[in-house]
Amino acid sequence: MAASTLRIALVQMRVGEVKAENVARAVQLIKEAAGGGAQLIALPECFNSPYGTSYFPKYAEEIPGESTNALRDAAKKFGVFVVGGSVPERNGDKLFNTCTVWGPQGDMIAKHRKVHLFDINVPGGIVFRESDCLSPGNSLTMFDLPHCKIGLGICYDIRFAELAQLYTKLGCKVLLYPGAFNMTTGPAHWGLLQQCRALDNQIYVGTISPARDTNASYIAWGHSSVVSPWGEVVSTCEDEEAIVYADLDMDYVTKVRQMIPVQKQKRSDMYDVISKQLEN
Amino acid sequence: MAASTLRIALVQMRVGEVKAENVARAVQLIKEAAGGGAQLIALPECFNSPYGTSYFPKYAEEIPGESTNALRDAAKKFGVFVVGGSVPERNGDKLFNTCTVWGPQGDMIAKHRKVHLFDINVPGGIVFRESDCLSPGNSLTMFDLPHCKIGLGICYDIRFAELAQLYTKLGCKVLLYPGAFNMTTGPAHWGLLQQCRALDNQIYVGTISPARDTNASYIAWGHSSVVSPWGEVVSTCEDEEAIVYADLDMDYVTKVRQMIPVQKQKRSDMYDVISKQLEN
Repeated sequence: MAASTLRIALVQMRVGEVKAENVARAVQLIKEAAGGGAQLIALPECFNSPYGTSYFPKYAEEIPGESTNALRDAAKKFGVFVVGGSVPERNGDKLFNTCTVWGPQGDMIAKHRKVHLFDINVPGGIVFRESDCLSPGNSLTMFDLPHCKIGLGICYDIRFAELAQLYTKLGCKVLLYPGAFNMTTGPAHWGLLQQCRALDNQIYVGTISPARDTNASYIAWGHSSVVSPWGEVVSTCEDEEAIVYADLDMDYVTKVRQMIPVQKQKRSDMYDVISKQLEN
Repeated sequence: MAASTLRIALVQMRVGEVKAENVARAVQLIKEAAGGGAQLIALPECFNSPYGTSYFPKYAEEIPGESTNALRDAAKKFGVFVVGGSVPERNGDKLFNTCTVWGPQGDMIAKHRKVHLFDINVPGGIVFRESDCLSPGNSLTMFDLPHCKIGLGICYDIRFAELAQLYTKLGCKVLLYPGAFNMTTGPAHWGLLQQCRALDNQIYVGTISPARDTNASYIAWGHSSVVSPWGEVVSTCEDEEAIVYADLDMDYVTKVRQMIPVQKQKRSDMYDVISKQLEN
């Protein structure tokens, strides 16, 4: 594989009520994806816990903690980068929805706390208020691979175009969004939002959902996917447990940006997207 | 029809080499759309001229001029708002790609000069350099209807998310983009970009293309459409001459924004999209 190409694997895993089983399952699938040649392996949002405000306090851990230690060990053992979806994180008396990222030496290279909490109310569809229980993060989060800089968001973060625009301005060529859309917003918006972020910013975007469990109180949409800088879905799956592989070609990012040079043609004399803080 | 509902018509008209015939055809279709109950009628980019840098100097007019006078008269005669797609505009020694908007009293209520010129190079696909011939506009352009504020872009302007974000911040609930995507970027991006703008900003977006003429030097994609604030295509057509009607419900804009309140949930403490100038 060319040095400009990064093989990633999105692990759309089943998540149940037994935390230890979820963590073991994640490690098993990281092993399998590493065997498939993936250099970076990403888990879904809330991979160690069912998704729901009633579960978060019970499943929450400090970082480091048992779940994230297992990710650290797996990254080191299999020599891969692990984007640890998210876990409910306890920090003092606050809870966060947090993604940790681990390098092949077992070092934590990034930690992202969900910035935009999921508070929506679609009558007859889905009502959810993460803010009843969680606190928001306040930072952009990026990390560097030999191939490229990667930016992180968690689920609802993907609805906010500004976050992706800032990551792009800061040099990210890949964005990863562990997420768990539902059976209302999933079919309507999951794939479309991902294509929006990819096409507008001419970057690769990966989304990682849990597999669908129709017995869960919150039913995930699935459809973990990779979209190219041209806005094309290059790799996807349905709702069942799956590992989605994709080879991300950084030369292709450059090529798309040469063909349609919108990043250079922005009218910075007329408008801009600005950050009001330093990133992590 | 409820006072909150605006009926619009997108006129996907055939454009040929004879300017007077193009203008007469536009007036005829405005009449037909007004008969269909449309309160606002929009024409495609370059409705009075074939699209191409070799045509622009030859077809260019000052504003007011024969083509825009015909729009003024039609708006007044049929008692409708006319969004006049675009014409090649001559102003001194400069040419612009310009949209005029006319009210039912025959008053020009807005004029938008394409802000982002179409310079792309897709090998084996499409090569085009509008900037060889045209100068860019330097302003946002909005106008008010009794129902809502409407923002304007022309074709390539739709690729720049910031423009739509600013219009939304300034209170627009409808964006209209006369445009002429081609047989490369059309199937790849025309519909997707429109859905991106609509979903991210929770607004109605209408795109208006010329009908496809496979004998033209520049072959338009067609597919004029209206997308809802939920990101759904609510009205569309294929590549042939057509009038696309849609009823835009401002109460639905409010409802979508209540269900998924992303406009209020933006983290303005972390980021913002800023304008560096006054609008028209």
